Amino acid sequence: MKTFQEYLDIINKAIAEIPYPESPRQLYEPIAYHMALGGKRIRPVLVLMACDAMGGSVDVAVDAALGIEMFHNFTLLHDDVMDNADVRRGKTTVHRRWNANTAILSGDTMLTIATQYIARMDGRNSRALMDLFNKTAIEIYEGQQWDMDYEERDNVTVDEYINMIRLKTSVLLGCALKSGALVAGADNANVELFYEAGVNMGLAFQLRDDQLDVWGDPETFGKEIGGDIMNNKKTFLLINAMRLAQGDDADELRHWLNDPFATREDKVRGVTALYERLGVRQLAEEAIAHYNDLAVAAFNRIVMPDRDKQAFIALTNKLAGRNN
Amino acid sequence: MKTFQEYLDIINKAIAEIPYPESPRQLYEPIAYHMALGGKRIRPVLVLMACDAMGGSVDVAVDAALGIEMFHNFTLLHDDVMDNADVRRGKTTVHRRWNANTAILSGDTMLTIATQYIARMDGRNSRALMDLFNKTAIEIYEGQQWDMDYEERDNVTVDEYINMIRLKTSVLLGCALKSGALVAGADNANVELFYEAGVNMGLAFQLRDDQLDVWGDPETFGKEIGGDIMNNKKTFLLINAMRLAQGDDADELRHWLNDPFATREDKVRGVTALYERLGVRQLAEEAIAHYNDLAVAAFNRIVMPDRDKQAFIALTNKLAGRNN
Repeated sequence: MKTFQEYLDIINKAIAEIPYPESPRQLYEPIAYHMALGGKRIRPVLVLMACDAMGGSVDVAVDAALGIEMFHNFTLLHDDVMDNADVRRGKTTVHRRWNANTAILSGDTMLTIATQYIARMDGRNSRALMDLFNKTAIEIYEGQQWDMDYEERDNVTVDEYINMIRLKTSVLLGCALKSGALVAGADNANVELFYEAGVNMGLAFQLRDDQLDVWGDPETFGKEIGGDIMNNKKTFLLINAMRLAQGDDADELRHWLNDPFATREDKVRGVTALYERLGVRQLAEEAIAHYNDLAVAAFNRIVMPDRDKQAFIALTNKLAGRNN
Repeated sequence: MKTFQEYLDIINKAIAEIPYPESPRQLYEPIAYHMALGGKRIRPVLVLMACDAMGGSVDVAVDAALGIEMFHNFTLLHDDVMDNADVRRGKTTVHRRWNANTAILSGDTMLTIATQYIARMDGRNSRALMDLFNKTAIEIYEGQQWDMDYEERDNVTVDEYINMIRLKTSVLLGCALKSGALVAGADNANVELFYEAGVNMGLAFQLRDDQLDVWGDPETFGKEIGGDIMNNKKTFLLINAMRLAQGDDADELRHWLNDPFATREDKVRGVTALYERLGVRQLAEEAIAHYNDLAVAAFNRIVMPDRDKQAFIALTNKLAGRNN
């Protein structure tokens, strides 16, 4: 296996070389712009890593990796329209720099381009790869819909939340690893273990994301701390706090959720203190460790050289403990 | 071959039986709602007809037919968001009945469901079918983008317009016929002739649509006459009128395009009279006949029983001359 950086270089080179048509410019420029915004590129790297570990050709897996990264970027582009977001990775979002119609149509185009990359795969697993890709896409739309539904509800349970992030975020990491294994022609047991590892890795990853929004280091996190708190976003932390707060704590939490005049500083400090007092920070750390352990266990059961296992385990540990 | 109505019954039954998941309701209800709005169902019927004519199984072709109809409805749903349209087929559009975010996300879901139907196909042409579907989708997005670009330009040529409607509308009819032939395992010459016939049929169909907006019978057209005129929509008629009008005619056309206080009745009557005087009505009829003739010629070259040829030719003649 190569290093993360070596896989990343392959992906970034392939993304830079995607041959977009010259015209209509208004359709393809936003796609190239969004794909060049960067990001961690975890999903396409996972495709290449799993393919390599299963003895497949990394070159052949690049198409599936590009398909999954293009798909991921399509979901971000449409999410930014739905959330009316101004900034993505420190740059102006497509629907702000161009307009909402451009973001919708360029996003649609990205979904079809992603499908074209997935469809390029030949051989006996090509049907399984396409079916996995489409099933995962449907799950992600469902997750996004649940996320929007939950913003309207005050009685979301922890189980509902975990299932929502499983759909919205985690299955795509499972899909990435499984796709790499499918491209390599790995046997079914290994293929399914990669999926299981990826989904649990994704859950730990998303829960860490919730946690970093509150306790992250502003220097390395890249976003302003407390965005979820300011938006009353129903994260793992808030859902648990709403479940656990009693008496004065419940009154205080209700106050922060409903006071439109609270300053950012006061609200973030107040809610963070409540999270600490209610033990919600600890619950998040335990949940992250739990899903990370499940990911590690799945990687350990895959039949592959020990040093490859260690590479995957180091990566999931890093993502679960990441500070950016 | 069966009658159009018999194929239509198969399609309508299959659409009514699509097994949407129960939840999230906000995601799937708009899809079922939009698919039930009706419409002519020309595209899925073309899939079944071509498959049947080439000796394939109509039952097997239903998946491809549903995929293409689902795709077509996805484009309408997103187009309605982009055009801010209130009404589709006499009913409230999805983004008005629900909201724009629902229309975006349900539309995305429809595109993936459509791809799933296309991916169900087995056998030696399954790859060709998926590639055709994706290529056609990209062309349709490009056509939509050109259409939006042209609304901002005053110097659109007739050739540019024909290429735009070829992409936005006609290739999907070509794709439908070709898909049916591919499902049937028809030989390559016939497959390509079906595509050629469908694209020309689609051009005649769209030009007739432009023409009906002005000279259609309000009783049968289903939409109010003159919508394109009121919106200064750059149709085949307006582009030719802008090209041909000289002197007083040019002044009058400019007046109608720029007078925000013109009543609907005056503007529609005035522009229609200009179209007649400039010979634009005649040009449209000639163009429709031209593309319809090309479609008929392509159908005639396909190796199939004469009565099947006659069925396709009767349909293209009907669509080119349709009054609704």
